[in-house]
Amino acid sequence: MIIDCHGHYTTEPKDLHRFRKDQTEAVKNKTRLPPRAGLKMSDDEIRASIEGSQLKFQRERGTDITIFSPRASGMGHHIGDFAVSLEWTQICNDLIHRVCTLFPKNFIGVCQLPQTQGEAPTSSIRELERCVKELGFVGCNLNPDPSGGYFNAPPLTDKWWYPFYEKMVELDVPAMIHVSGCCNPAMHTTGSYYLNADTMAFMQFILSDLFKDFPKLKLIIPHGGGAVPFHWGRFRGIALNNGRPELDEIIKNNIFFDTCVYHQPGINLLAEVVPADNILFASEMVGAVKGVDPRSGQYFDDTKRYIDKTPALDEAARRKIFEGNARKVFSRLKTKVAATA
Amino acid sequence: MIIDCHGHYTTEPKDLHRFRKDQTEAVKNKTRLPPRAGLKMSDDEIRASIEGSQLKFQRERGTDITIFSPRASGMGHHIGDFAVSLEWTQICNDLIHRVCTLFPKNFIGVCQLPQTQGEAPTSSIRELERCVKELGFVGCNLNPDPSGGYFNAPPLTDKWWYPFYEKMVELDVPAMIHVSGCCNPAMHTTGSYYLNADTMAFMQFILSDLFKDFPKLKLIIPHGGGAVPFHWGRFRGIALNNGRPELDEIIKNNIFFDTCVYHQPGINLLAEVVPADNILFASEMVGAVKGVDPRSGQYFDDTKRYIDKTPALDEAARRKIFEGNARKVFSRLKTKVAATA
Repeated sequence: MIIDCHGHYTTEPKDLHRFRKDQTEAVKNKTRLPPRAGLKMSDDEIRASIEGSQLKFQRERGTDITIFSPRASGMGHHIGDFAVSLEWTQICNDLIHRVCTLFPKNFIGVCQLPQTQGEAPTSSIRELERCVKELGFVGCNLNPDPSGGYFNAPPLTDKWWYPFYEKMVELDVPAMIHVSGCCNPAMHTTGSYYLNADTMAFMQFILSDLFKDFPKLKLIIPHGGGAVPFHWGRFRGIALNNGRPELDEIIKNNIFFDTCVYHQPGINLLAEVVPADNILFASEMVGAVKGVDPRSGQYFDDTKRYIDKTPALDEAARRKIFEGNARKVFSRLKTKVAATA
Repeated sequence: MIIDCHGHYTTEPKDLHRFRKDQTEAVKNKTRLPPRAGLKMSDDEIRASIEGSQLKFQRERGTDITIFSPRASGMGHHIGDFAVSLEWTQICNDLIHRVCTLFPKNFIGVCQLPQTQGEAPTSSIRELERCVKELGFVGCNLNPDPSGGYFNAPPLTDKWWYPFYEKMVELDVPAMIHVSGCCNPAMHTTGSYYLNADTMAFMQFILSDLFKDFPKLKLIIPHGGGAVPFHWGRFRGIALNNGRPELDEIIKNNIFFDTCVYHQPGINLLAEVVPADNILFASEMVGAVKGVDPRSGQYFDDTKRYIDKTPALDEAARRKIFEGNARKVFSRLKTKVAATA
């Protein structure tokens, strides 16, 4: 079985975009928010949107299950107050739940959180519980920068985040550290902002005692860990200079990188420096880079091809990356997959 | 000849630190600034500080010339107003000039700029001219984020920066895009902030027409280009999706990566994806990562060793990286090296 741990619903029914536009305009102009009941998205529309893209790609590429969450760039935690963020988040999570209910063998949900700039992450606990307990979701996407590009939240190692981590551990769900759309003109959402947040998060973790405080906390750093594997020597050196253990030891039970790296040399490097136990297969499709590489004739984000060809991986390591590690990190997957099989 | 294009004076005489501390305190408390005349740094002190570190490493590692600039993390453009930044910058540049005068065969100067948060880069033109014309410097370090970690300056492709680029082209000097110390608790200066600024800058360039406007502008992205080579497929895909040419074509005459990547797999990847014409040898010593890798028994930042062993490079490519490209990018080097030979 091949589990893609990082897929976003980026082909949503068009009325969802209409609603969000209305909501954003209302926030900006301080006028009446659009009624949730006005949102019209039929099962047929949802089915078509999935069958023509994510499901098609699953079949073509030979992957089985996608761990599926709302469009990351659409979370928009910098827009509006907590009430606005909560309503939008619930709508997005409920929509993921509908996808997972329509295609129970192919998609398993991960939730967006109702984070808001300046608001403590405790306010996201209730939605996390709802998604895990009521909707059967297996994880969440945690935004380390709800400002949308100005990085003014406390580091992820700050006690500010601890109550949220406590709940994650209690529910036994991991978080993918994932920012949303960038409203800072200096950074491009999928080109630099995503990667920068990944690199920032890793650096926060390796100098902290976070995993002493939460030995069971599981965090996924997407996009291959940002700049981290390329600069593995730099991070190793900084960790060792600060009296920390080797990176392999630091990340062992707690930090995982996905394989959203869109070329063979990048995946080769990832597999060469990061232990196979800490790599989760992912493609981020349909996401950051659409389209076919004119040189290879293959989709840039068809990451399975790269992993199939990576010299540093033997079959056992490949099995871990494709399936075993995802089952370990998303512990709730076990029941889900059994139930839908 | 082996030219290291990225070295900082990080072993400065201790009175420089005393002065900067006094200056920073005075800014904070709005009290009288320390007198520049009070700064005491003897030639002997400077000599000892260089002989015991940078010069020692040059000899041990077999490199010849270091293109040398003030400590990057010390530029501190977020501290004080333009007058404070200018005074500090002139002191730092003059100190580099003293090093270069004491060791003319080993060090060639690159200047820091008197940037200030919110202040247009035109105000840095005069110091650039002074350093190039009077002190014989061959380039500058340009800070894309004078806020020190909040990324609130216009993108480097914004016309805000154009008058400065015009002067660079007129003087025929390149800039290394280099942020300073980070005052944002979410980011670690050398671990994540530096790399994030590099990645951000590259992404700004590839979607812009900057090099149509300035075909002769030469920009170096340090630290191996941040996350860029590791995510070469992502950046290629985004560029192509936006109707831009291949990255090789975009960067050809204008963007150069240095080799400050502190492990063999990272350097291998860099050399595999980035054309050899766009790579400049550098070590950033004595800088971000001090000390010896306990696994290899060698200094992390002894990047020459990695380049010597990179399979993707033949001898011609290695010559370009070690010398030829630096002479091309730092055009003023030619006269300097001839004069001191």
